[in-house]
Amino acid sequence: MTLYVYKFGGTSVGSVERIKAVAEKVKSAQDEGNQLVVVVSAMSGETNRLIALAKDIQQQPTDRELDVLISTGEQVTVALLSMALHQVGCEACSYTGGQVKILTDSSHTKARILHIEDQRMRSDLAKGKVVVVAGFQGVDEQGNITTLGRGGSDTTAVALAAALKADECHIYTDVDGVYTTDPRVEPKARRLDKITFEEMLEMASLGSKVLQIRSVEFAGKYNVPLRVLSSFAEGQGTLITYEESEMESALISGIAFNRDEAKLTINGVPDRPGIASKILTPIADANIEVDMIIQNIADDATTDFTFTVNRNDYLRAKKLLDTTCAELGAKKVSGDEGIVKVSIVGVGMRSHAGIASTMFQALAAEGINIKMISTSEIKISVVVDEKYLELAVRTLHSAFNLDQAK
Amino acid sequence: MTLYVYKFGGTSVGSVERIKAVAEKVKSAQDEGNQLVVVVSAMSGETNRLIALAKDIQQQPTDRELDVLISTGEQVTVALLSMALHQVGCEACSYTGGQVKILTDSSHTKARILHIEDQRMRSDLAKGKVVVVAGFQGVDEQGNITTLGRGGSDTTAVALAAALKADECHIYTDVDGVYTTDPRVEPKARRLDKITFEEMLEMASLGSKVLQIRSVEFAGKYNVPLRVLSSFAEGQGTLITYEESEMESALISGIAFNRDEAKLTINGVPDRPGIASKILTPIADANIEVDMIIQNIADDATTDFTFTVNRNDYLRAKKLLDTTCAELGAKKVSGDEGIVKVSIVGVGMRSHAGIASTMFQALAAEGINIKMISTSEIKISVVVDEKYLELAVRTLHSAFNLDQAK
Repeated sequence: MTLYVYKFGGTSVGSVERIKAVAEKVKSAQDEGNQLVVVVSAMSGETNRLIALAKDIQQQPTDRELDVLISTGEQVTVALLSMALHQVGCEACSYTGGQVKILTDSSHTKARILHIEDQRMRSDLAKGKVVVVAGFQGVDEQGNITTLGRGGSDTTAVALAAALKADECHIYTDVDGVYTTDPRVEPKARRLDKITFEEMLEMASLGSKVLQIRSVEFAGKYNVPLRVLSSFAEGQGTLITYEESEMESALISGIAFNRDEAKLTINGVPDRPGIASKILTPIADANIEVDMIIQNIADDATTDFTFTVNRNDYLRAKKLLDTTCAELGAKKVSGDEGIVKVSIVGVGMRSHAGIASTMFQALAAEGINIKMISTSEIKISVVVDEKYLELAVRTLHSAFNLDQAK
Repeated sequence: MTLYVYKFGGTSVGSVERIKAVAEKVKSAQDEGNQLVVVVSAMSGETNRLIALAKDIQQQPTDRELDVLISTGEQVTVALLSMALHQVGCEACSYTGGQVKILTDSSHTKARILHIEDQRMRSDLAKGKVVVVAGFQGVDEQGNITTLGRGGSDTTAVALAAALKADECHIYTDVDGVYTTDPRVEPKARRLDKITFEEMLEMASLGSKVLQIRSVEFAGKYNVPLRVLSSFAEGQGTLITYEESEMESALISGIAFNRDEAKLTINGVPDRPGIASKILTPIADANIEVDMIIQNIADDATTDFTFTVNRNDYLRAKKLLDTTCAELGAKKVSGDEGIVKVSIVGVGMRSHAGIASTMFQALAAEGINIKMISTSEIKISVVVDEKYLELAVRTLHSAFNLDQAK
């Protein structure tokens, strides 16, 4: 018997009608002889409604009370979905994170899962019941309600699949799989049948928001085969596994990009050991995430130091850097809010030289100036002026023949 | 140090503004040096909204899933109230019924409380925290979420007060206390400073809907002093205790009435042992509650049997009685949907003769015909035609001088 964990996000359970449709989908999977654990998010809009209520009362609610509040969203959905399953003749039973129980640490609003008790779920499954679990939430040792952070329902699904050694974990979303790039930018973008965990991680971290990065890490760590599919359409979606793509295919799996970048440079910094930490510590202390970092020696005595941040953090980061500049006796701070990052991702590039030069040549041929370059084992990222985003994506998509099925 | 349990119903926490007002009230009580446990209901309208969602999915949802669903209502309120308390500088911590924990049996939607763990609450109180508890809910032995039925938040408050041996349990409502009768019927109705549990029970069961009858029973059983006050106005409210009213006062404490009555009579029933049970068993089996029961011998061989039911159950009860009538070979079934019950209540009547005759004379003087009479130790009820309701209430209110403060 095959055991699946299905996960449906907020849009997929956003109304009574959609909850009924999810019940039908689960019912047919059960009718085919499968065992099912279903993880659901709060109905779309509900979490935001609850947060708005909280903000009306207190600008900065404590994380503990915020978790008590927003965890009700998923609790409502599990009850409603169980009712919808009963209505179509499926035996089903709902559980909150605390009831399962999904034990987490006590980091409210961003808790990490420590352990999952599987007895109650196994016993229900053995009785032929569908197990419906609230995503995004757990309890700590003291019985306090915790949440795993936005997108945490994906993590719940993968963690349950790992704990139950499920055959596959299906993440139902509003897209029908993972694409070679965003089809809104490159209409020739093609759905991938398969992608490796590593590639998916790079795609996700580079702004392809199909899956939460944490859930992919988790799935990779516990080797849970993960499949991304559409709630609203038929189709096999994209399978994310350890298996590498077939031999003949895929030097490059996809093109990821990120619009929300900004870049900051501090010029003429006296070149002393510890300078990078002096520059970045105030940024980190202000909870600003730094993405790419590049340092070059300018002349014998000074260096230039460049990094990128989320565009929303640009002004705060600039202010902090101005202070640092004065403290270090550096020359000046400059910045650019109008940049984007475009990356090619693929496990194939590990063993193939020449990928980078193909990339740079293709961009140069279109007159796209590269402002920064950063590489990892399976990824090459470039920063370019934001006006080139679409052109760069399409150019690379075609340079690596991504529109042709392998 | 005085320990209070405060309970605020749905109207009192029906909006962000009202939740803030509750926080202010709690804060000033704490500033006066008191310890506080606060029980809250769901925001008004929320429980009905959730039930409507459920009914859109399944006409008869299972009670277990219904409890999972509607218990979220109070969970939202405890989180919001805790935030509002933090905002005014009160340390506070919220708990669901399961977290406290309030252990109940497994009768979903109408569970009974079996045990309350007080350690976590005591530890918080000792640290100067306000403890905020979700009313209306608990967990069973297996960790399933249960609810106590409508109005169960009053029961939660009284049960917590009993478990913690609180000095007083305050039930905040939209009225400022218990009145000698409904002020909408008799404008001269007067707020009582004090009433006994027994009197309150009779008042509540007779349709004075200030408090849930179960919570009064509970308070009486565990001798928890209960005070009914207004959430929106100042004032001492009405204290409900074991102490009887002062000597000089109160033969009668109040006039209760119930509009929703209907009466059914089966005439000419062969007078054999067990006849009452034969008549009432089908009614009870259909879950119809019977209120007053009167049986009189009509002649040597047959008897007349009369009882009252809620007006909503009249037609169903009539149909059942018609069947019974045929089975027993009784003469006929008659009924009256246009009746009301008016009762005088007071522990004082135990030791005073003549109360009944004062009552009957006063009614007779106004030409009000009495259709049924029923008495208990501290109550005399009469059934009259519904058109006499207001007149009967005012007549009795004045006959027993209830408008004059004692």
